[in-house]
Amino acid sequence: MASILDRINSPADLKGLNDEELKVLAKEIRRFLVSHVSKTGGHLSSNLGVVELTLALQQVFDTPRDKIIFDVGHQSYVNKILTGRKDRFDTLRKKDGLSGFPKMEESEYDAFDTGHATTSISAAYGYAKARDLRHEDYNVVCVIGDGSITGGMAYEAMNNAGKDKTPLIVVLNDNEMSINHNVGSMAHHLSRLRTRKSYLAGKETLKKAAARYPVIRPLYKVLDIAKKRLKYLLVPGIIFEELGFTYLGPVDGHDIKVLKEVLEQAKKLKEPVLIHVITRKGKGYRPAQEHPTRFHGVGPFDPKTGELIPPSGDGLSCWASYLAGTLKEMAVKDPTIVAITAAMKKGTCLDRIAPDCRVFDVGIAEEHAVTFAAGMAAGGMKPFVVIYSSFLQRAYDQILHDVCLPRLPVVFAVDHAGVVGEDGETHQGMFDLAFLGHMPNMTIMAPSCLEELDSMMQYAVELKSPCAIRYPKGEGISLPKMSSYPLEKGRSVMIRQGGKTGGPSVCLLAVGAMVRPALDAADELEKEGRSLSVVNVRFVSPMDRDMLTRVFTEYDLVVTIEDGVKTGGYGMRAAAFAKENGLPADIAVMALPDAFIPQDTRCHTLQEFGLDARGIVKKVKAYTDRRIQEGGGAHEK
Amino acid sequence: MASILDRINSPADLKGLNDEELKVLAKEIRRFLVSHVSKTGGHLSSNLGVVELTLALQQVFDTPRDKIIFDVGHQSYVNKILTGRKDRFDTLRKKDGLSGFPKMEESEYDAFDTGHATTSISAAYGYAKARDLRHEDYNVVCVIGDGSITGGMAYEAMNNAGKDKTPLIVVLNDNEMSINHNVGSMAHHLSRLRTRKSYLAGKETLKKAAARYPVIRPLYKVLDIAKKRLKYLLVPGIIFEELGFTYLGPVDGHDIKVLKEVLEQAKKLKEPVLIHVITRKGKGYRPAQEHPTRFHGVGPFDPKTGELIPPSGDGLSCWASYLAGTLKEMAVKDPTIVAITAAMKKGTCLDRIAPDCRVFDVGIAEEHAVTFAAGMAAGGMKPFVVIYSSFLQRAYDQILHDVCLPRLPVVFAVDHAGVVGEDGETHQGMFDLAFLGHMPNMTIMAPSCLEELDSMMQYAVELKSPCAIRYPKGEGISLPKMSSYPLEKGRSVMIRQGGKTGGPSVCLLAVGAMVRPALDAADELEKEGRSLSVVNVRFVSPMDRDMLTRVFTEYDLVVTIEDGVKTGGYGMRAAAFAKENGLPADIAVMALPDAFIPQDTRCHTLQEFGLDARGIVKKVKAYTDRRIQEGGGAHEK
Repeated sequence: MASILDRINSPADLKGLNDEELKVLAKEIRRFLVSHVSKTGGHLSSNLGVVELTLALQQVFDTPRDKIIFDVGHQSYVNKILTGRKDRFDTLRKKDGLSGFPKMEESEYDAFDTGHATTSISAAYGYAKARDLRHEDYNVVCVIGDGSITGGMAYEAMNNAGKDKTPLIVVLNDNEMSINHNVGSMAHHLSRLRTRKSYLAGKETLKKAAARYPVIRPLYKVLDIAKKRLKYLLVPGIIFEELGFTYLGPVDGHDIKVLKEVLEQAKKLKEPVLIHVITRKGKGYRPAQEHPTRFHGVGPFDPKTGELIPPSGDGLSCWASYLAGTLKEMAVKDPTIVAITAAMKKGTCLDRIAPDCRVFDVGIAEEHAVTFAAGMAAGGMKPFVVIYSSFLQRAYDQILHDVCLPRLPVVFAVDHAGVVGEDGETHQGMFDLAFLGHMPNMTIMAPSCLEELDSMMQYAVELKSPCAIRYPKGEGISLPKMSSYPLEKGRSVMIRQGGKTGGPSVCLLAVGAMVRPALDAADELEKEGRSLSVVNVRFVSPMDRDMLTRVFTEYDLVVTIEDGVKTGGYGMRAAAFAKENGLPADIAVMALPDAFIPQDTRCHTLQEFGLDARGIVKKVKAYTDRRIQEGGGAHEK
Repeated sequence: MASILDRINSPADLKGLNDEELKVLAKEIRRFLVSHVSKTGGHLSSNLGVVELTLALQQVFDTPRDKIIFDVGHQSYVNKILTGRKDRFDTLRKKDGLSGFPKMEESEYDAFDTGHATTSISAAYGYAKARDLRHEDYNVVCVIGDGSITGGMAYEAMNNAGKDKTPLIVVLNDNEMSINHNVGSMAHHLSRLRTRKSYLAGKETLKKAAARYPVIRPLYKVLDIAKKRLKYLLVPGIIFEELGFTYLGPVDGHDIKVLKEVLEQAKKLKEPVLIHVITRKGKGYRPAQEHPTRFHGVGPFDPKTGELIPPSGDGLSCWASYLAGTLKEMAVKDPTIVAITAAMKKGTCLDRIAPDCRVFDVGIAEEHAVTFAAGMAAGGMKPFVVIYSSFLQRAYDQILHDVCLPRLPVVFAVDHAGVVGEDGETHQGMFDLAFLGHMPNMTIMAPSCLEELDSMMQYAVELKSPCAIRYPKGEGISLPKMSSYPLEKGRSVMIRQGGKTGGPSVCLLAVGAMVRPALDAADELEKEGRSLSVVNVRFVSPMDRDMLTRVFTEYDLVVTIEDGVKTGGYGMRAAAFAKENGLPADIAVMALPDAFIPQDTRCHTLQEFGLDARGIVKKVKAYTDRRIQEGGGAHEK
């Protein structure tokens, strides 16, 4: 029998469905999600949680005329399924396929690009203002999680939008967790609201209650307080009300009928409204319901059992878990060491060490995380701030102004640095070398292997000034021989010395995770009779000027290799150093281009930009072949 | 007669003073402030407002053991006066003198470096946590204005600190304005609180009221609500209470006795407390009281009349006011143009055009400002985001993720770019070229003169992609001849062509405000028989590769000149470009060093780093003299 879902090719096809049909459709969508995400990997739990909500939104609102903005956006799969993209769902998160996040470029039903949390209310308010100034007439809705709402931007946006009375609907999708469990007073506030049985306990209810309980009236006089104050007795969501929003809820986010009612009500109100919707992450798929965090962002799994299909690999621990393990050992010995993360306790593996190590998860609040660390450091602690590269961008000013300027000993463990793969543009960790690189007083290190991560952490904690250690996503690299080169302050180290081979001499300067491919490339070229030197850069800031002077003097070609954006990166800085100092060698800068890098596997992306052994070999050969053709040999030394 | 102030050399000298003596001292301090700031310039209004508060803090708390953190910090003058720095007050904001902001390096009484708003609660919470983890025993207090508290970090910090129950005191210094009048729902919330007559209407009052009015008790049953909810009837500051803070206030911030009582109470509570203190900006000095914004950050003035002493100059309009004027003209013609600023309506001169142009002041909320602009752009508007360079740092991720990634046509008017002078390290606008320079899709322009600012604004609004125009603080430059070089997309322009002079040939590439000193230097050198070319860079991103190729091929020396940090800046990018492409000319990169630049006059700072005509002449001579000595002449061309 043909399913209802088969007939849904755009939101228009939803309009005629009754609530019973929508319930059936919700089941079909859940099956669709589990079946597809079990193959492609992706965000499952959050999407299973918003099936009814998305159906209700698409039935009540008239998209793409009305705008729906999904905060963070990893919960937008259902919306994609309903807006003509279900047939492409097997391309999810693959090269040239459907994005795992909303993209205006991908569909007119995606009203705003999201990826980082807590941007949606600001963007929605912008849309709403634009609409009013242009005398247009459409609804603007944003869907934001209870995790995202701990970010300061949500408050900044509500503080502005609430005062303004511009019609705008914020749907607070409250599933009691961001990726991990939520933290802070707001979570507590929401949990108190959730315990209420009623829904729509907003202004309507207040009116009714006042009519029903005449005892309230004399109370006004007794306490000599304004009528307005009394609403605090009856209206939940007082923070939102104080910020100027009409609070509706809490609403059962899996009851389509009720959801549609409240959305219709919000639409009629023509003012800033916050609808508090209670959903359950993983709803309708038992493994995800039981392990919502595991199925937050998940790789391929067996849809029947929920068993994850383990990625192939040599079983080495991943960078993050290695860092966490080392941090634990250090923290056990040194009671002044603490770890701080921003709603990524699991992603950064800090959850594994939380009981031993003093781990502070501040929620989605990167700015606060960094200045909180600065305060701790001023108070005599040694904080490790463990945040993904892409999210650390949010705390640029706090790093510069609150850590670097007063030179406080905060260590930034920059996780997921470089290429991240399937999450695409919004999540690439490619800017950290550039944005940290120009910060005064900041030391930046990049380990080539787990052994080096260890020694860099020891070094960092002794440093007494700001320091960043950037390491990639995924499985760690082991290079045992690296231990024979002790870490020295600000020193790059030549880990392979090329021999004389007649042709142009080449030295590779590799940053962090690029060291192994550089060594592999050197091995490969050795076989062909070209002998290269390889330098492990180790310190991106400060640059090792002695090493640079040496290699730009002794070699014909210096190749820098880094998995970060080119402008402002290590290679560009090295090239400028050589140019300014009139050092003779040629340079080839291998880096990511100054562009947003779309989704693909991490491995393919690195390949595409030549940041693997093959790409390095190709680059070196192209140069040496050209030099030999031109009749140029080695520089005179 | 010797004043009381004469005897105060450290907070210990305050301890024995009674409230009457403190009142006298408050008057003396105000006289001291007016007398000194009228000579040095500085922040007056806010300091006049916190005299009693600071006296009370220093009497109740035991600094430097107890930590007091002043948010933003321009209201810390009184604290400096009381902590052994009054004799150096005539050096305020001068080279090597007292900073206008708290600096740990300057005094052990400055517990944290501040300058940018809304960092203090995070830092204080960090201190408090460090204290508890180290089993130490001291109080942590932060003083934050009602302007600063509109920043999202304040909410992030309270969300964490409130849940935690770590003892911590936040003093909300509510003077009903940040630099301009405050905006948003929080301001409204506070203004409602201010109307209350009572003070200390916290939990104590609730208890008393419950005892006094037995009618409250049966109400519990009638409404079937928990006792806790009832406090909403009586406890103001409900937002703070919901965030887990005990709210005390509002308190008259000019009544020392009451202030001391409430601070003592807060100290005893041993939990997160927010004290709502009402102060008056400019208190006790009529001109400042009547014009608090004029006396916020002020130059020298006549202390008797409050008349400002006009700075010398040729009377040209300043960059900011010129931008505002042009924006107004554009906005009158094009109804889709809007302007957005973050609590700097006056500083950016947008206050002058607010009625005609659609100006949105979002309060201290740079992150929101940028994403709000992105939403507006997505909704069809053409927003100009007008923010000081140093504060734009706070929105790094929002520019990258919400504007550049979706390529939205937002124009950033980056005010106070380059050297700012007396405000020092925290306010220098020296990082924008570096942090915007590596953002994909971002066009960066720097006008050499007001005429060019005009044409760049016209260009920007047509561009349909992200764009930044950076211009300095202060008086504008007029270079009428620049109009004869029409602005072309991505093109630098040679505005002076050097002749043959035998010696090494030199071309200056000057960015924005550095063009005039470059021209002056060329004039100077011409007199000595050295003929230089000068290029007005105009586009920092994308770089004009044709022009770079040309000058690095045709000249012996290329000198780049910019008033930004060197790493990641224009000069470094140009040097790397030349090196990568094997272009022959030598390069000298003139820029600010990779360091925090301390306070001084803007003019002296530029001089110090050679970024004036004299410095450029010196640089060129040093090179050409060396080349001539070495026997090197012109490159063969």
